[in-house]
Order: sequence, then C-alpha cells, then structure tokens
Amino acid sequence: MDASRLADALSEAGTDGYLIDASQDDPDQLYLSGFTGPDPFLSLYADGRTHLLVSGLEYGRASRRSRADVVERYADYGYDYGDRDDRLDMYAAFLERREVGSVSMPPRGPIGTADGLRERGIEVVVDRTGVLEELRAVKTDAEIDNVRSVQRATEEAMATAEDLIASSTIAGTDGNGDDSRTRIGSDEEAIEPGTLVHDGEPLTSERVKTAIEIALLKRGCALEETIVACGSQAADPHDRGSGPLFAGEPIIVDVFPRDKATKYFADMTRTFLRGEADGTVREWHDLTHEALREATDAVEPGVTGEAVHEAACAVYESAGIPTLRSDPDTETGFIHSTGHGVGLDIHELPRLSPGAGELEPGHVVTVEPGLYDPAVGGVRIENLLVVTEDGCETLTDYPIELEV
Amino acid sequence: MDASRLADALSEAGTDGYLIDASQDDPDQLYLSGFTGPDPFLSLYADGRTHLLVSGLEYGRASRRSRADVVERYADYGYDYGDRDDRLDMYAAFLERREVGSVSMPPRGPIGTADGLRERGIEVVVDRTGVLEELRAVKTDAEIDNVRSVQRATEEAMATAEDLIASSTIAGTDGNGDDSRTRIGSDEEAIEPGTLVHDGEPLTSERVKTAIEIALLKRGCALEETIVACGSQAADPHDRGSGPLFAGEPIIVDVFPRDKATKYFADMTRTFLRGEADGTVREWHDLTHEALREATDAVEPGVTGEAVHEAACAVYESAGIPTLRSDPDTETGFIHSTGHGVGLDIHELPRLSPGAGELEPGHVVTVEPGLYDPAVGGVRIENLLVVTEDGCETLTDYPIELEV
Repeated sequence: MDASRLADALSEAGTDGYLIDASQDDPDQLYLSGFTGPDPFLSLYADGRTHLLVSGLEYGRASRRSRADVVERYADYGYDYGDRDDRLDMYAAFLERREVGSVSMPPRGPIGTADGLRERGIEVVVDRTGVLEELRAVKTDAEIDNVRSVQRATEEAMATAEDLIASSTIAGTDGNGDDSRTRIGSDEEAIEPGTLVHDGEPLTSERVKTAIEIALLKRGCALEETIVACGSQAADPHDRGSGPLFAGEPIIVDVFPRDKATKYFADMTRTFLRGEADGTVREWHDLTHEALREATDAVEPGVTGEAVHEAACAVYESAGIPTLRSDPDTETGFIHSTGHGVGLDIHELPRLSPGAGELEPGHVVTVEPGLYDPAVGGVRIENLLVVTEDGCETLTDYPIELEV
Repeated sequence: MDASRLADALSEAGTDGYLIDASQDDPDQLYLSGFTGPDPFLSLYADGRTHLLVSGLEYGRASRRSRADVVERYADYGYDYGDRDDRLDMYAAFLERREVGSVSMPPRGPIGTADGLRERGIEVVVDRTGVLEELRAVKTDAEIDNVRSVQRATEEAMATAEDLIASSTIAGTDGNGDDSRTRIGSDEEAIEPGTLVHDGEPLTSERVKTAIEIALLKRGCALEETIVACGSQAADPHDRGSGPLFAGEPIIVDVFPRDKATKYFADMTRTFLRGEADGTVREWHDLTHEALREATDAVEPGVTGEAVHEAACAVYESAGIPTLRSDPDTETGFIHSTGHGVGLDIHELPRLSPGAGELEPGHVVTVEPGLYDPAVGGVRIENLLVVTEDGCETLTDYPIELEV
C-alpha cells in the first residue's frame, strides 16, 4: 500500500485519521488491516500506523495475522458486550487514546457509527475521494500474483464446464446423425429434442454451475454466484441461468470466484455453443472477439477507461449494431460497459466506461464486450488484463471458441 | 412481515419512510424487498408500501421476483451512471417523488448516502431501535421451513464429516491393534503417529471442510467458512482449523451454510473424537451435553435470553469450571454466550447472553455451550431451536456422540 497517498488524502480532508468499521470481506478493511473476521471490528490509520480494535475472540488471530501495527481488544476499554451506547463510548475512547479528534470514513461506512462518534465530539467526514478504492486499484506484483492464481483456478473450472457441454449428446439425435429420438431417464420419459444430455440426464445450468463450484472449491476458491445462461436467458446480462441447456443456442459461462485465503477475485467469461451456430450468432461471436481485441489493444498507461470502452463500441457500431453510446435507450446490442477493475472486490476501480479516467500500471481490469437480444440470446467474451509500463498483459489463458 | 410494527417505528421516530441502501446479501434489505442483486439498490418503506430503485440491468428481475409494490429504474430519473452527486440527486428525487422528506436508516446504512441526502434537504435519522432486525427475529412458518431445509442439508454435510473421521485409520497402528507404524504416501514418508489417515493420505481440516462444502453445494447451499478444529486449535472458538487431525483429540465441526435460493442460514456444531477420549474430554463433553439440555429446557416464550444463558453457566459452574459469569477475565472454560438468532443473517436477534431480552414464539436460536482450554482443546455442541407457543422445538436432528 502506498501509505503516503493515504496520508495526503487525510491532510487534504483535514482529518486526523481514516476509520473503517466493517466485517468479514469489506475490501477497504481487508486492504488496510490485512485481517478479516466474522465480527465487525475497527481499523484506524493515523500517524502513519494502522490500529485495530477487535473482540476478545479475534484478538489472538488479529495479533498473529493482521498487518496492523497495534491491536487492542474490547477488554482494554472495559467493554463487555453492552448496548450500542457502550460500544460507541469504546470507539470514541479508542480514538481519544490516540488523540484522533476527526476521521474520514468511506462512503459505505455505517451511519450508526458515524453519527454516534459525532455525538461524542468526533468530527466525521465522508471520504468522497474514495482514496482506499484508488489505492486498491493499483496492484503490487504480489497482488497480481494473487489474482493470477485465482484466474488459473477459474480456467480449470471453465474447462470443466466446457467439457460437460462439449461431451453432451443432443436429444433427438443419437450422436451419429441418426434422427431417432433419444429416450431419457429411469422412466424412459421423452425430453425435448435439442436438449443437451449428459450421463443420461438433461444437462442443466444448475449441473454445470455445481461442477464449476466443485472445481473451484478444490482449489480453495468460493463463489457466491456463477452465470450459465442459455438462449433468451443469456440476453439478460444479470440472469444467472436455470434449467436445461440446448444445442444451437449460445451458452454464456461467466465465472468470478474469490480465493478464500487471499480474498482476491478473478473474472472470466466464454460463450459456448453445442452443435452448429447460425449466421447471426457466428457473426456476433466474431464481432465480440474483434471488440475484445480492439479494446485490449487500446489498453496502456495514460489511456482513459472511456477510450477503451469506445474502442469496443466502435467495432459494434461499424457493423450497424446499437450500443449505449449510439443509442442510450437501446435494450439490445452492447448494453453494458466494457470492463471494471478486479482485486479484493469483484467490481472496483478502474472502470472501462463513459467518463472513466486514465489507466495506470498495476491496474487489473476485465475487458468484456458482449451482445444481447432476447430474439437471439447473448454472447460475451471476458478476459482479465493487467496494465503494464508499456501496454498490458492478458492474464487469461484460455481459447476463444464458440462451437464445442 | 408485521408491517404495522414498522409503521409504528416510523411514527415513533417521526420519519416518513424507512430507507435501505445495500446490495446482495444484506439481511434487512432482503427482508424488506424480497430481492437481491449484485448492484446496490434502494429499498424504501413508506405509506404502507415497499418501493425499489434498481439499475436497468436489474429492472426485469426486480419487477418479476421482488416483493416490492413499486419498482423504478435509474432511467426513470434520467440517471446514466454519472458521478456520486448525480446518484445522490437521483436518490433525493426518488424520495421527493413520494413526498418523503425524512427517513430512518439502519445503523449499518452507508454514511455517504445519509450525508448526501442530508445535504439535499432530507432528514436522516439512525434507527436505534433496530426495528427490522426485531421484525426479522420473529419468523413465519414459511421462514422456519426455510431454516429447517438448510438445517437438513447441514446435517447431511455433518454426516459426511463424521464418516470421514470415523472411517479414518490411525497412523502408528494398523487398525487391528498392531503397533507397527503405518507408512503413507507415494514416497513412503513416515507420518506422525496418531495422525488420522484416509485414502492413504493424512486427513486434514482442509479435506474435511472441502467434503462438507461439496455436500452442501449439491444441496444448493453456500458457506463462507467452516470450522474443523482439532486439539489446541479448537481451544480458540474462532479458529477455523488447519492441518492434520489426530486421534484422541476433540475435533470441533461447526457448519453454518446459507441456502443460495432462499438466503436463510442454519448452524450446527458437533465435537468428534477418533479413538478413546481421556477423562477430562469425556467429562467436558458430558457437561456440555448437560448444559445444552438445561439451556434447551429453559427456552420458552417470556423467558429472557439471559436466563437461558445462565442455565448453561450454572451447569459448568456447579462442576467448578469457570464461565464469563463467574470470572469475567477467564480465558478458559465457557468463554462465549450461549446462542444467537439465525435467519437471513447467521448472527441476529435474539441473543442468549447477559442482558438479553424475552423470547417470543417464532424466534429461531442456536444453543451452543462449549468449553475451551489450550491444554485440553475445545468441546462445543450446538443445536438449532425454534421457540413455540409453549416451549421450543429442536430443529436439529443429529446424534450427540463424542467418540467415533
């Protein structure tokens, strides 16, 4: 962490310290404290040092494992799980012991703590600069290695998903070109022709997601959600997908796990199609691959995130497909931004979108152009990149092939 | 949801509405809106109705799936992913359109939103009553069924863990009482006598946790963390455990997953010991089982959470073992509270601890006495209960046996 930037931000804000009150997986708190635990705890940056206030149950772990210079526990303030006022009294005493009379807090810090400290004479200012998010955006080599490691696990999980789809048979054919209807399941119930079938059962989004999750678990990664969306489901970029998968329809597979130990994320998307793609889907995939290449080529230090986004938009627009740039009201075409930072949060700075600022070496970003239309489905391809001194390096190591 | 209680709280606070700005898995927001998505969104309760403000990407899902009476999207306010001030202008306009000039927000609501609304003339009051957490504490039958369903999955995962431990061999014996040292692994490396061995490899906390997670994944449940802690690790109630497991030492297995679809949690703990327990561990387990029974017997409507906690403390104290009640400074013995509510959050109201208030029918609580000492290890047994009209029903259906 570039602590001088944090000290500068405090000096600009005119506050004595930077205070975070969060629990578990808050990215700013993880970044500042190097610690996580199930109970909320306080992290304070003041006078060039990081100070933690944790429960007695967390004290041992925090002392051993956090990056903090000073760790105190509730008992140091005579606090014994009293009411909210007792807790706020302790927080105020923790600040006063360090002669901290004013603090900056991140915008998502809790209003209860902020107003409680104000009532106790501490000045609380919302950090509108998002200084910790900006600090987090620029990764050290060690952090990039953390992302790279999750990305490798993500690719293994993607291969598991691709294998399941590619090795499925298509109901209504016997896999050898015969048209006789496949009959499935213990009760020999007929299933809809075109359904993908694996191990004698319809291959569903849910089955593919479970396979992805198990592959990631074995690599020490967790995920809240995965997208395996087929057909019209894939036309809604936020639809996670459910039910049977079908041949001839694009299947978006978007995997974004977090390493349980390091807490860093990765993010990647491929679109697979079992069988033969029709002309439109084929064209969409080619265009999206080209948008990925053009946007990737644009990534280098000093270029704005907006310019990278525009490089992707230009590819689609020159093919006559609407984007939010060419038509802010469009509900089909390229209807989201080109990418976002990835690190201790799955969506963080920098953005690759309208108005986004300059890229710096150490930024880790997704580039993820895509096209959507309920009548066609969806296509998205997403790589993970790190901005280098003279361009970028693609962290994703996975083929881009539609038909499997 | 008993909306009249929320309306009463607003009337007492003198505010026009209750506002939540959160994302994904915030329990209050889930409870009020019946919706979750990756992007932050606003939920407002005002005039007897629930109103959501979501991004365009979430609009379709929110309209179809949320419990809200009204769903609006950013575009309805001309907001196009501008800066923080544009967003706050939109939030203020969303409130003004409903003639809401003052709002209550939960204590963990974001200070950035609260201060931003204040600057725009909206009065923002921190809800110190925790009204939504109190509402959430009292479950409907449908909610209890949700918890019950996760609890069944949790028991399956616990059985997987128990089977792994019970079917392990003990290095240094051949499993038939022979003392010849077992040699393990492809390089025939000797491992420490007493280590549990499964499938030719040392059985570790990590392996047991992965097996638990896979069992839960297959049931549609996710977990952030699991505790499988052996020996001195188990003496720290928050240590998740790592490395090889050993015969003759208590192994605490604490599993607390969340159903991915309903978002409800369950929570259970058992302590297993492979081989024969020594006298102290045996006594600790018996006492903890007795503390569980006594505390469970105490649970009924009108009894305080404090009284239930004291019932558990009394069992330990009468055996001469310290508790935080008998010795607030003790670092061994019964060093945590007896339990907590479980629902859309893993730790919620009511508490079973000093100062905790009266139980009501529909409360779902853990009862989880335990003993800890680095010289001995740890023992904890945790059941999940629902408070009924005339007592309680234990939701956990799993044997309590130390030696496996």
